[in-house]
Amino acid sequence: FVFQKIMGANLNQAPVMKALVRVQDLTPEKADQLIWLRARIHTSRAKGKQCFLVLRQQQFNVQALVAVGDCASKQMVKFAANITKESIVDVEALVRKVEQKIESCSQQDVELHIERIFVISQAEPRLPLQLDDAVRPDGEGEEEGRATVNQDTKLDNRVIDLRTTTSQAIFRLQSGVCQLFRDTLTKKGFVEIQTPKIISAASEGGANVFTVSYFKTSAYLAQSPQLYKQMCICADFDKVFCVGPVFRAEDSNTHRHLTEFVGLDIELAFNYHYHEVIDSITDTMVQIFKGLRDNFQTEIQTVNKQFPSEPFKFLEPTLRLEYTEAVAMLREAGVEMGDEDDLSTPNEKLLGRLVKEKVCSLIIHYLMSKYSNSYDMFMRGEEILSGAQRIHNAQLLTERAIHHQIDLEKIKAYIDSFRYGAPPHGGGGIGLERVCMLYLGLHNVRQTSMFPRDPKRLTP
Amino acid sequence: FVFQKIMGANLNQAPVMKALVRVQDLTPEKADQLIWLRARIHTSRAKGKQCFLVLRQQQFNVQALVAVGDCASKQMVKFAANITKESIVDVEALVRKVEQKIESCSQQDVELHIERIFVISQAEPRLPLQLDDAVRPDGEGEEEGRATVNQDTKLDNRVIDLRTTTSQAIFRLQSGVCQLFRDTLTKKGFVEIQTPKIISAASEGGANVFTVSYFKTSAYLAQSPQLYKQMCICADFDKVFCVGPVFRAEDSNTHRHLTEFVGLDIELAFNYHYHEVIDSITDTMVQIFKGLRDNFQTEIQTVNKQFPSEPFKFLEPTLRLEYTEAVAMLREAGVEMGDEDDLSTPNEKLLGRLVKEKVCSLIIHYLMSKYSNSYDMFMRGEEILSGAQRIHNAQLLTERAIHHQIDLEKIKAYIDSFRYGAPPHGGGGIGLERVCMLYLGLHNVRQTSMFPRDPKRLTP
Repeated sequence: FVFQKIMGANLNQAPVMKALVRVQDLTPEKADQLIWLRARIHTSRAKGKQCFLVLRQQQFNVQALVAVGDCASKQMVKFAANITKESIVDVEALVRKVEQKIESCSQQDVELHIERIFVISQAEPRLPLQLDDAVRPDGEGEEEGRATVNQDTKLDNRVIDLRTTTSQAIFRLQSGVCQLFRDTLTKKGFVEIQTPKIISAASEGGANVFTVSYFKTSAYLAQSPQLYKQMCICADFDKVFCVGPVFRAEDSNTHRHLTEFVGLDIELAFNYHYHEVIDSITDTMVQIFKGLRDNFQTEIQTVNKQFPSEPFKFLEPTLRLEYTEAVAMLREAGVEMGDEDDLSTPNEKLLGRLVKEKVCSLIIHYLMSKYSNSYDMFMRGEEILSGAQRIHNAQLLTERAIHHQIDLEKIKAYIDSFRYGAPPHGGGGIGLERVCMLYLGLHNVRQTSMFPRDPKRLTP
Repeated sequence: FVFQKIMGANLNQAPVMKALVRVQDLTPEKADQLIWLRARIHTSRAKGKQCFLVLRQQQFNVQALVAVGDCASKQMVKFAANITKESIVDVEALVRKVEQKIESCSQQDVELHIERIFVISQAEPRLPLQLDDAVRPDGEGEEEGRATVNQDTKLDNRVIDLRTTTSQAIFRLQSGVCQLFRDTLTKKGFVEIQTPKIISAASEGGANVFTVSYFKTSAYLAQSPQLYKQMCICADFDKVFCVGPVFRAEDSNTHRHLTEFVGLDIELAFNYHYHEVIDSITDTMVQIFKGLRDNFQTEIQTVNKQFPSEPFKFLEPTLRLEYTEAVAMLREAGVEMGDEDDLSTPNEKLLGRLVKEKVCSLIIHYLMSKYSNSYDMFMRGEEILSGAQRIHNAQLLTERAIHHQIDLEKIKAYIDSFRYGAPPHGGGGIGLERVCMLYLGLHNVRQTSMFPRDPKRLTP
């Protein structure tokens, strides 16, 4: 990339490397020490011969003061007061214990008395949005006429919006979900696989698939890694998982649809019964939720400050409802439905509420009909996973393809995979953004996608 | 997907669940036990009243025998002899110690005396390739007229080719590379990010980019996550990494080019000097190679049996050559070049050989010219990483874009990211398949891609 090369001969000179302290380490133990710190100017307020700054590093911040006196001239106070918000500065400062806790900062017991200040990177004076506005809970500060920031403004200026405590917490937790998913499965003996995203035939029948121009021909973007996961099972990898982008050319403009999202996918051979697959999937989800509960309380509470929600509850093992039990619960609540009807989305939500009142936010139901070994998983009443035992017989697969009028030539490599011995197997996949949204009780999947893609949004 | 639903009412009956033993656990301690096992028929040879089978699970196999006698009838021996290779069977068998080691199997000290055998999934009789042919080292068995399998046949029938011990080892090691990469960076405080693959503007100037039809407009497939990694640095994530597909519409049909590969990418803010970035990258590579050396010896040796190569050597810390040192070494070896000439590919390879003779296969050189804080990393003389300090000033970025005649409107969101304070930063990325290829001393990147994509290959 042409921008990689920077004119920076001066940076090759031996620099003066001062040890830099982290804001989160500024505690009373550091009192009366002279330290160096690099941080952003979060807020700035000049008042007579003083300038109060709040210095921020990610979710941590500390109050700092430049005051005319022994260490600072009038010019220096003026210089500090003129540094634009969000600029990055290096300061040399004395750490001072404060008598009254500074409620507005994460470091409540100390403040910094600045002796020197250097601008490392200057922000333009007019910010497209104010961080404080972007983290204000809905409705708060309305009477004082404080601005709120709508979602499109946030997403249009995502780099600034991502600096808020809420965004920092969301995406650190999301990083944790991926790590917990992989660590759990690796411990269970699963192998991570990489499946191709450019494919020669639309795997799910041609609807909702993006077309790619591929040299002199056309190709498609994979809507799911399912076929490749299954081929890896036929290739004796036994238990596999993958984490990667999934593409859906669906013109849905809802709170829960993206055209590109991150799929966390599992596939495994089983010995006797597809419930072995359900066991693996549900236990993996439970391990993720236990890991979040135990290691991400700070992040959960940070998000909750802006977006209050009931804590996510789960049972270990996961609550499972057979389809017939689910139907019975719904009927008891007054829903009229046949024994074999599919659950409608409102009925799924109702079922979620009925169960949550009793015990938990995470459930799975299975055996959706007498003829299909399938299962659906729900968080707070919304579907997060739909999986099934797969057909592992080439003959039966061929019959089903013909029945569904799928061009056999296009899925030849897939069907051929089952001709040379294939174990019974099953699997499923979850969407990273949707799981994070529901876990945190958020209401829009764009909040849990760093750079979301939908039919109307391709930037930033 | 339509094939998800399987007609399998019979599978919902309570099955008889026999505890299944793993082939790798068949050791003399199990002698005289009656066990159940599920495995593939690797080879089958009938001889009079006996049928010798080799049963395989992934990289492990064991000899088994069906013989007319107390436990097996003549019909049963015939039945067993007729089971096609690669079929999956359940057997009940007595474990017997053998007097002479069975050299051809991984389990050399025992064999199985089969009492019952069931076919779980039958393979078609004509295999498109023989596993034994596919793992034979080049040139071996030529005088006996044994077949070798060319690469296209292997890739066309990848699901069978992936069952070989070599392929199993390659992709288990590859899974390990990803895990070591992420674990090392997570321990260093890096955050995993997910960057979009569908982008609105060709990030690297428009050449070699795949076009996607996106509803009523066009989009592109990301050639690198670099711009998004940098935006995450501007968004205060400080140190980030990502693992994901990277797309290059380059019509290169070489041993080392793929149109889709897996990028392992790093980006971090630094305090004083871009050498901090080099430190992070080289230490991450060293940790990966230490992890492979310590935990994947079996896999390395398995691959080496088919593809012999010198062991990969590395120093800790990584050997670094300043550009001027590299030039001096090349001149000493008789190469004529100017002080500021770029290293040609043959000269890079020569440099690799010169260094390897002395110490190691992994080197980095940096400060490629007086005007650029950049660095290149090499394994066995081939480039695996090219990185640099980035420009973090919107003004300078704009000037460079104009100089390179890039449409500013198209990279507006990217340039705007640097307007509101941006720390100095740098990074780099490696290709998973290329690193695995070079680590194992293989000669074609298609061997380390499960389902490779090149200008001529889109299936399977």
